[in-house]
Amino acid sequence: LPGMQTSGSKPCPCPSFKLREVASMYFTMIAVFLVILVVALQGSAPRGSDFPYKVPLDPQGLLELSWNVSYPQQVVHFQLLLRDLRFGLLFGMSDRGEFENADLAVLWSDGHNSYFGDAWSDAKGQLHMDSQQDYQLLGARRAPEGLYLLFRRAFSTCDPKDYLIEDGTVHLIYGILEKPVHSLHAINISAIHRGLQRVQLLKPNITVPELPRDMKTMEITAPNVVIPSQETTYWCYMTELPADFPKHHIIMYEPVITAGNEALVHHMEVFQCAAEFDSFSHYNGPCDSKMKPDRLNYCRHVLAAWAMGAQAFYYPKEAGLAFGGPGSSRYLRLEIHYHNPLVFEGRRDSSGIRLYYTATLRRYDAGIMELGLVYTPVMAIPPGEDAFILTGYCTDKCTQLALPAAGIRIFASQLHTHLAGRKVVTVLSRDGREQQVVNADGHYSPHFQEIRMLKELVAVFPGDELITTCTYNTEDRSRATVGGFGILEEMCVNYVHYYPQTQLELCKSAVDPGYLHRYFNLVNRFNDEEVCTCPQVSVPQQFFSVPWNTFNRDVLKSLYSFAPISMHCNKSSAVRFPGEWEKQPLPTITERMQEPVPHCPPAPGPRPAAPVPLNLGPLRR
Amino acid sequence: LPGMQTSGSKPCPCPSFKLREVASMYFTMIAVFLVILVVALQGSAPRGSDFPYKVPLDPQGLLELSWNVSYPQQVVHFQLLLRDLRFGLLFGMSDRGEFENADLAVLWSDGHNSYFGDAWSDAKGQLHMDSQQDYQLLGARRAPEGLYLLFRRAFSTCDPKDYLIEDGTVHLIYGILEKPVHSLHAINISAIHRGLQRVQLLKPNITVPELPRDMKTMEITAPNVVIPSQETTYWCYMTELPADFPKHHIIMYEPVITAGNEALVHHMEVFQCAAEFDSFSHYNGPCDSKMKPDRLNYCRHVLAAWAMGAQAFYYPKEAGLAFGGPGSSRYLRLEIHYHNPLVFEGRRDSSGIRLYYTATLRRYDAGIMELGLVYTPVMAIPPGEDAFILTGYCTDKCTQLALPAAGIRIFASQLHTHLAGRKVVTVLSRDGREQQVVNADGHYSPHFQEIRMLKELVAVFPGDELITTCTYNTEDRSRATVGGFGILEEMCVNYVHYYPQTQLELCKSAVDPGYLHRYFNLVNRFNDEEVCTCPQVSVPQQFFSVPWNTFNRDVLKSLYSFAPISMHCNKSSAVRFPGEWEKQPLPTITERMQEPVPHCPPAPGPRPAAPVPLNLGPLRR
Repeated sequence: LPGMQTSGSKPCPCPSFKLREVASMYFTMIAVFLVILVVALQGSAPRGSDFPYKVPLDPQGLLELSWNVSYPQQVVHFQLLLRDLRFGLLFGMSDRGEFENADLAVLWSDGHNSYFGDAWSDAKGQLHMDSQQDYQLLGARRAPEGLYLLFRRAFSTCDPKDYLIEDGTVHLIYGILEKPVHSLHAINISAIHRGLQRVQLLKPNITVPELPRDMKTMEITAPNVVIPSQETTYWCYMTELPADFPKHHIIMYEPVITAGNEALVHHMEVFQCAAEFDSFSHYNGPCDSKMKPDRLNYCRHVLAAWAMGAQAFYYPKEAGLAFGGPGSSRYLRLEIHYHNPLVFEGRRDSSGIRLYYTATLRRYDAGIMELGLVYTPVMAIPPGEDAFILTGYCTDKCTQLALPAAGIRIFASQLHTHLAGRKVVTVLSRDGREQQVVNADGHYSPHFQEIRMLKELVAVFPGDELITTCTYNTEDRSRATVGGFGILEEMCVNYVHYYPQTQLELCKSAVDPGYLHRYFNLVNRFNDEEVCTCPQVSVPQQFFSVPWNTFNRDVLKSLYSFAPISMHCNKSSAVRFPGEWEKQPLPTITERMQEPVPHCPPAPGPRPAAPVPLNLGPLRR
Repeated sequence: LPGMQTSGSKPCPCPSFKLREVASMYFTMIAVFLVILVVALQGSAPRGSDFPYKVPLDPQGLLELSWNVSYPQQVVHFQLLLRDLRFGLLFGMSDRGEFENADLAVLWSDGHNSYFGDAWSDAKGQLHMDSQQDYQLLGARRAPEGLYLLFRRAFSTCDPKDYLIEDGTVHLIYGILEKPVHSLHAINISAIHRGLQRVQLLKPNITVPELPRDMKTMEITAPNVVIPSQETTYWCYMTELPADFPKHHIIMYEPVITAGNEALVHHMEVFQCAAEFDSFSHYNGPCDSKMKPDRLNYCRHVLAAWAMGAQAFYYPKEAGLAFGGPGSSRYLRLEIHYHNPLVFEGRRDSSGIRLYYTATLRRYDAGIMELGLVYTPVMAIPPGEDAFILTGYCTDKCTQLALPAAGIRIFASQLHTHLAGRKVVTVLSRDGREQQVVNADGHYSPHFQEIRMLKELVAVFPGDELITTCTYNTEDRSRATVGGFGILEEMCVNYVHYYPQTQLELCKSAVDPGYLHRYFNLVNRFNDEEVCTCPQVSVPQQFFSVPWNTFNRDVLKSLYSFAPISMHCNKSSAVRFPGEWEKQPLPTITERMQEPVPHCPPAPGPRPAAPVPLNLGPLRR
């Protein structure tokens, strides 16, 4: 994920000590009120220890969110710690972290009284009280570290003003009220200190497998890095396994975060290097430095990945990720994304990932398979698109050839695009009928790429198809975005983690280049009737020279949903399975999955739901 | 509208007298119950005289529906007369009159007790009780002519199982239960006698203008026609105005239906013939007869149109439709569509239209303008489409030239397509921004083409654009449907009635033929790379030879929403306004109208809609 950037959140200046002292006095005064309130509300409130997930909201860590998820109740319980309560706060969710059209819980004070309510912001950012109150306050509690607010929210409220909490990324937003406000309407959302934090709110409800007695740990941590005083840094640190380290199974890993840096360490990955090189230099520095040896680009095999808000990652009890032993490289690369929007200087960090591994190999080696689109410029996105869709296929022909009769089980997935990616979904299809979603993120952000455990194992059998669809936004671009490795080029990939490992490393597609050639001919002829087709220039050059009117754009869409594909059904990135993989028919879907009907909280209607008995007597015998 | 056919409804055999007598006894017995029920429910029930609209549901007239519309309450009150009550009935609404996915009110009896409830049918036609009861029973009343059921239904219920009552056509469906049923689930919807009736349920709420004292009437009626014993007949009857009949204004007209034929006379129109012919023969016979003189095809200028369920048509008080006087033909053609699905024999009919006219001319002559698509094969619909959209434009350039500075006022509209038409809408756009809907019918049927009064006058000024969009279904066709006059060709027209009359009779468009030629070239090249473009065959022939895959279909769509248009901005069907009308830019819409948010009946939620007061005291001063 080199070169990723994170959208900034505005700095929130520290309040002066004087104000803090005044606040303390007030808090002491109002403690009695709070006790009453908490007692009154505590009946249905979970205890503080019941919040397994935690994430700082702001870069200073003044706001800390903990939560739990009840799937039976379809409800999320939130516990928000406000370390420095001022005149209230906004907390909520929106499509991509914007403050317009957001769904908000607001705590506000007019200087005398305080209020809590469910609100929403319109397209101009103006706040409105919601007619249906779905953020339900359960309690408030004063502690030495700050004020705790407890509230709950159903996944789905069926209120059109409310955000629908779905699997995948949720963009949480917060804002701090620094002056008294007399009403919701008086809050000027653009003038407050605010920011966003991305989390996977609906964590899967997975039972932790039993861990073996001979389990060992290994910390892959960067030693005492001085975090650069810039918003975004990708730090690269090379290390190596001991000599003659035999094959082990990684069965779990978890983050190791230097205390105090919880809000700065955005995400981390451990990569294994390619086995064909005997050695790699011990680099320790920014990934984009000119000093970085080029060979480090051959360290791309993911061993572990963590992102803010994620917990420990456990392999299923039947499987482990092989590392060590003959045929694999001893060299590992740790990559840390530091997100330092307040540009702190001189912060030292030794964060990294702790691997838990065992010499007692589990039944299955886990494998990672790449689904989606081949990295090729033939798959392109016109400029100025708000939601352009590209689809990559893993065909029945490939799975037929490469998967064992008993199938494989996918247990985790990491979605990947570059900067224009907005949604990613992989669907499993069998005999043309969609069976289930493998992984979906309707609020996907390239700045938040976790390996996510699936809620349930997905069984894939020979003959199944895996269809990965990515949605891109290129509204801010003036020329076409082609597929490729560059950060301004695009990818559409789902790395699925599965067992038992097979030879199939890559099952991806791209449009047939011959059909794309016809498209360029067509564009030339249609737009300027008697001009000849272009000479042999590169595909990106041809895309860059297309005049992007609605017709050329629509026809490209039609091409991608019609033209045959070139399949990459590969053992490794260069070795294909034997067979004919060019000009393959596009998989067709004859039966789509039903859109899930949102489960709404019960709202007793004004009318009886039963038949009205009518004493007409028997009408006729 | 020649050649229209109406989908049949199954014959409903008459019950034997014996059963009727038994039923009478039961009704006498249960009268007491009914009285109690009616008294209990009558509080909110409107009186019988309060139902201004009436339509027979079945071809025998055993079921008769009356209704009224309350726009302030957004509610329709229904009064259903069951002349021959058996074991209950189904009454409801569905998208196009189908019994699957329908929204139904059901009255049913198990032989002992009777029930009324709001139900819905699923995609297989299975009935289910609705969890929200939105058909609300207000009362039941026994009268000599039968049982009256009174119930109400909000336009919009926000229940996803319910039909949304909108402007335009509503397909009413009915079914008669002839055996006792023990529950809703026991009703086999495919085995009952059933049918459909199309009505405009939401009649506009228009105050009738004052009528002048010198008003005269003229009945244009077919004299003593024997209705043919076949399901569909279009009857043509020629008549003429008196010699030297001076110019008058038609200010109103209404149907004249022979008593007993209310369920057979489906729709009627009075046309004026073309002035260029001195005489027309006095034909009286079926419109599709070989005996019909060809010259009658020149009688197409609509003077009046009525369809089942419509009431009298009133011109606005400022305007009247000119007829008589120099420069207009004395000859009139009456066309009656008889719908006789039960194939009654020997029924005699003298129905027609009564014109109300005055010699005291009103301030403005009313005019009729044709909007939409030119009748040309260049606008075509691929086969197998469930909802293909074609759009016709009346451009700013044409209205700029042809309309007076003070604008025109549209007061009525008649939508027109041939058999594949499913929806029609005309939108007024100004400076690229949609302003208002002129007329819309989301459940349009080619079998139900009324002239409809608009709820409010639509003012159109020079520079405005009128965009007419038609949606077609060609799922049952195997070759392309091209534009044209034939019944299996298509049209997309909105005849708007307006004042003051202008010279602009026709403001329609079609795709530029040169761009369509490029499309055919593209299709040839793309689908079979090195084949030459077709020789000069006709446009329909070229459309018929297109291999209709998704690509060719999608590209045709893209072409129609991109290519420049040829405008017909005409004084009459052959005379254009001066100006350049070829290769005109397609009007663009920069701002669409907001979809109206359905108004839901109030349903008090489980939670308070107000802020929860929180006694935190002042947080900080």
